[in-house]
Amino acid sequence: MPILKTTDSERLQEVLDDIADRIAGMSERGKVAQYIPELATVDLNQFGIAIAPIDGPLISAGDAGTLFSIQSISKVFSLTLALQQVGASLWQRVGREPSGDPFNSIVQLEHERGIPRNPFINPGAIIVADVLLEDRSSDEAVNDLLALCRELSDDNSIEVDASVAESEMRTGSRNRALAHFMQAEGNLNAPVEDVLSLYFRQCSIAMSCEQLALAGRFLAAAGQNPATGATVLSAQRARRVTALMMMCGSYDASGEFAFRVGLPAKSGVGGGILCIVPGIASVVAWSPGLDQKGNSHLASIAFQELVRATGWSIFGPST
Amino acid sequence: MPILKTTDSERLQEVLDDIADRIAGMSERGKVAQYIPELATVDLNQFGIAIAPIDGPLISAGDAGTLFSIQSISKVFSLTLALQQVGASLWQRVGREPSGDPFNSIVQLEHERGIPRNPFINPGAIIVADVLLEDRSSDEAVNDLLALCRELSDDNSIEVDASVAESEMRTGSRNRALAHFMQAEGNLNAPVEDVLSLYFRQCSIAMSCEQLALAGRFLAAAGQNPATGATVLSAQRARRVTALMMMCGSYDASGEFAFRVGLPAKSGVGGGILCIVPGIASVVAWSPGLDQKGNSHLASIAFQELVRATGWSIFGPST
Amino acid sequence: MPILKTTDSERLQEVLDDIADRIAGMSERGKVAQYIPELATVDLNQFGIAIAPIDGPLISAGDAGTLFSIQSISKVFSLTLALQQVGASLWQRVGREPSGDPFNSIVQLEHERGIPRNPFINPGAIIVADVLLEDRSSDEAVNDLLALCRELSDDNSIEVDASVAESEMRTGSRNRALAHFMQAEGNLNAPVEDVLSLYFRQCSIAMSCEQLALAGRFLAAAGQNPATGATVLSAQRARRVTALMMMCGSYDASGEFAFRVGLPAKSGVGGGILCIVPGIASVVAWSPGLDQKGNSHLASIAFQELVRATGWSIFGPST
Amino acid sequence: MPILKTTDSERLQEVLDDIADRIAGMSERGKVAQYIPELATVDLNQFGIAIAPIDGPLISAGDAGTLFSIQSISKVFSLTLALQQVGASLWQRVGREPSGDPFNSIVQLEHERGIPRNPFINPGAIIVADVLLEDRSSDEAVNDLLALCRELSDDNSIEVDASVAESEMRTGSRNRALAHFMQAEGNLNAPVEDVLSLYFRQCSIAMSCEQLALAGRFLAAAGQNPATGATVLSAQRARRVTALMMMCGSYDASGEFAFRVGLPAKSGVGGGILCIVPGIASVVAWSPGLDQKGNSHLASIAFQELVRATGWSIFGPST
Repeated sequence: MPILKTTDSERLQEVLDDIADRIAGMSERGKVAQYIPELATVDLNQFGIAIAPIDGPLISAGDAGTLFSIQSISKVFSLTLALQQVGASLWQRVGREPSGDPFNSIVQLEHERGIPRNPFINPGAIIVADVLLEDRSSDEAVNDLLALCRELSDDNSIEVDASVAESEMRTGSRNRALAHFMQAEGNLNAPVEDVLSLYFRQCSIAMSCEQLALAGRFLAAAGQNPATGATVLSAQRARRVTALMMMCGSYDASGEFAFRVGLPAKSGVGGGILCIVPGIASVVAWSPGLDQKGNSHLASIAFQELVRATGWSIFGPST
Repeated sequence: MPILKTTDSERLQEVLDDIADRIAGMSERGKVAQYIPELATVDLNQFGIAIAPIDGPLISAGDAGTLFSIQSISKVFSLTLALQQVGASLWQRVGREPSGDPFNSIVQLEHERGIPRNPFINPGAIIVADVLLEDRSSDEAVNDLLALCRELSDDNSIEVDASVAESEMRTGSRNRALAHFMQAEGNLNAPVEDVLSLYFRQCSIAMSCEQLALAGRFLAAAGQNPATGATVLSAQRARRVTALMMMCGSYDASGEFAFRVGLPAKSGVGGGILCIVPGIASVVAWSPGLDQKGNSHLASIAFQELVRATGWSIFGPST
Repeated sequence: MPILKTTDSERLQEVLDDIADRIAGMSERGKVAQYIPELATVDLNQFGIAIAPIDGPLISAGDAGTLFSIQSISKVFSLTLALQQVGASLWQRVGREPSGDPFNSIVQLEHERGIPRNPFINPGAIIVADVLLEDRSSDEAVNDLLALCRELSDDNSIEVDASVAESEMRTGSRNRALAHFMQAEGNLNAPVEDVLSLYFRQCSIAMSCEQLALAGRFLAAAGQNPATGATVLSAQRARRVTALMMMCGSYDASGEFAFRVGLPAKSGVGGGILCIVPGIASVVAWSPGLDQKGNSHLASIAFQELVRATGWSIFGPST
Repeated sequence: MPILKTTDSERLQEVLDDIADRIAGMSERGKVAQYIPELATVDLNQFGIAIAPIDGPLISAGDAGTLFSIQSISKVFSLTLALQQVGASLWQRVGREPSGDPFNSIVQLEHERGIPRNPFINPGAIIVADVLLEDRSSDEAVNDLLALCRELSDDNSIEVDASVAESEMRTGSRNRALAHFMQAEGNLNAPVEDVLSLYFRQCSIAMSCEQLALAGRFLAAAGQNPATGATVLSAQRARRVTALMMMCGSYDASGEFAFRVGLPAKSGVGGGILCIVPGIASVVAWSPGLDQKGNSHLASIAFQELVRATGWSIFGPST
């Protein structure tokens, strides 16, 4: 089977419609995240998918225009901002290895003296947030993140969902523990509550599949925003962020996602998954029900079907 | 920079010669593995590299014809054989996630009741060896592995280095501990010494960069041996083995290798590294000096330079 | 050698004087705790020891009247207060086993879902503090603890050292991490900062060897204050607190202390050690220099010498 | 309540009879060890208890003359023999701290480079066995252990139960793993199978409550065999072995046993528990049903009742 070209937008639309149809008929839909009311009450029956080719118009199906909480997918954008700001020196404070532990484990952190294993587990993302606060307030950092997402999505309506952020702030004891622990180890500089204020607000940004696919597209396009030609990251940095998504983007199931789907991905407990198809497109699928590892159950299945239909696995062609 | 085509073999030869020249001048060469005399006495000054394109002749430079101990790279071939034999049921006995721990750690194994995290850490490869013994003796299994390597490399001279195997067998206390531990947990069926006899002999197979590049080439070619058209694994299984190499192939530095090189790889403490460039080629670099994580120091550098020169990262083009 | 009777106060005085003399001549004195200035600047040359027999007057030597920061020894008194208040239900929230890990380790806590191993490691003492806050404010709890110490020592001058408490509060990131972590697991009810305000103030109580020996004496006297006949704890509870001191009172060196000294003990990073000789006396030795495990180096030696001279080991007579 | 004197043998006999009567009526009896047939088929309804005062005749009740497998209680005698042989140098190869982990955990061992936490967990006892093999064969070591037990019990009939030993040897994968692991770390000198042959045979010694109480009595008597006056260990060493029993003698429930009973103890999965009452007596209770931590459920209860009736807790008198 030849690899499906994004220029064949008619066939791609068929593929997405077919996936959305099949997903709609599935009874096993996972469980929505329970730790805050704003996530716990989201309708399980929703599903959306959007493809943003680097060289063509958006293609989407299902609830691809519905806003959802991007949660940990925001870690891709905060990492991008931090790399723009401090470059490679970031890697003195956070590692680049898969963690082999649940995403909020404190054990690894203790064992390795406050240096989180990678920027996509919670403690790593908290360090990235702390880096952003080196030369701005947490309000400014939130605005810079929103500005980046709005610019890439060409959509100025993107906002933080304040009620989600407040709930996160109220219930965030485990992330507080992680932050204080890293402060004890000397790896956190700003006051813990400032860092968490940024962290919880970035997680509470609400975006649709379509917006998010556009926002991630620069990673498929050698670091450039295809819409404007502007360089977001150097080609090398874009590849490296993509590599980190592959290795560490799906919590404790990153290996499973690589095995089944074969695309670099970042998931969030809001039910979204952003995948990069290098040189081809950025794709977002969303359905709020999660599997046991915290990744969207149906969005994962959607990506398996997408790769089967398109041949887009980075690990090789289908025949 | 456009991606370098393998049909431009003249340019590829230049790239390899240039890499070999630069490597020859490097003074920091790592340290050879010390645990057995046969590895400890290997000459640090050696370096070889070979590319086996899926659609063209071998290209190589340096000591690409010199035999070395393939060690953990053998795990790719034993996994291939086990998948041929038992298929997906293998995954009931070994996981598919990066381990986040050193390659011979027993901690994870205890935590997860004797199910190794993946088939490329030592305990996982011991389970794979045990699977092979389900319907053959350890002598037969060694012969089947040699037959597979010989067929793929089109070279009947490939053999186990008996003195390496004997040294491994004598000093293998930690692998013995792992095997007995998994037997205690009910995840090892054959007698421990039989399993280790196979395991240590597979690690002691001696091959050159050229032989090994040919042997791994089916993984870049949708599971088929390009020389014969024979199917070694289905396209899907080949992609999945390649994904496992990406996620778990470089011990506790798999993330670092993905970050720096961006190719699926399997390394061995003999100093070899096998990389797959899906749809393009299989590449082996070898230099016996290891870094602190047990991967060849100079072979890793060689792959960074190769990807820089060719644009072969699976995480995206260079510009 | 017969066991030395406390009624032979002349001989006991000789023993203490002899110990103080020998300690004075020792050049290896350990290192003072460095994490707050108030402890880091304490004079290493100080040493005091005081015995409070259950049936006789105080006997002391050296700097036995000098105030020092009782630190973790306060955990004995907060536990006593909590047992008075809630009784055996305390054990639903904290365990009774030695931890096998450094005193502020968060690993065990994660493994065991927020239930600290025992009330003498930091997270366990934080839970005990939280229990005290169930029916009083943190100011009231501090006052109750001071009242208990003053009553038992018959000395109303005992106070919290406010500057120590403030320093602890400022630098207590690791204890904050522990508290937030336990809150995340549902095992902490009061606001973290309230609990820590109590915890850091109880650790900052300043007492002398003489005061502290009197304060701990009820544990040697079947739970009764020998001075007044008042019951502090039932005889069974007093034995159990003493058993906990034996098993868990010297951080990660409790086994070593049992092995070398053979008395139930609780140490603090201020350099004090409180030992119980059941049915005979309570003894406190103090010298600010700590060993690598955080116990006073010279106070430990003093207890070895005391037991050698008196035959007071609970593990048997000397001949 | 005054402490009960062993000279009041009439009252002591009443106490034991009363305990045996109550135990006989208990319906919750624990579960026998399941890992070998010889233990799995032992009758749950048996219970025996025997007191060996240091200054008087044996007092016993129930099935105190029935042989059972002493299992881990043998670790007390192998430690005694090793201390006789190599003295304090033993402590370079095994620690003296409670483990905080299940008795056969390999995690701690990996973390601490092959040095077991104490001689009463399995890996620690395997090291002690290896020490015994420094100057004798495993057959000789078994004979020396039997000779020690026979001498102390004044009973030449004590033997290894060969069928238990064979079953242990066949099913001992986890202990094999521990031994190979320590060999990998350089802390085991003799061949693994030799060490295990000794270890499994020592665990398979069959003794009755009465024999075992006599055998342990020297620990209550400052290291001397009261029957002969012979010195088994120095008074200091006897106290230290007793201290180790207190801290580490009941697997992962040593703290609980100290808390509830207050006596130094060593338990075995055969259902026996040996307790030392320093200066007074040695006591053994036995009932084959185990609790979740691997200690005899009813023997533990028997000791709680015994201490309640006699006031023998080392942590203080009853009133």
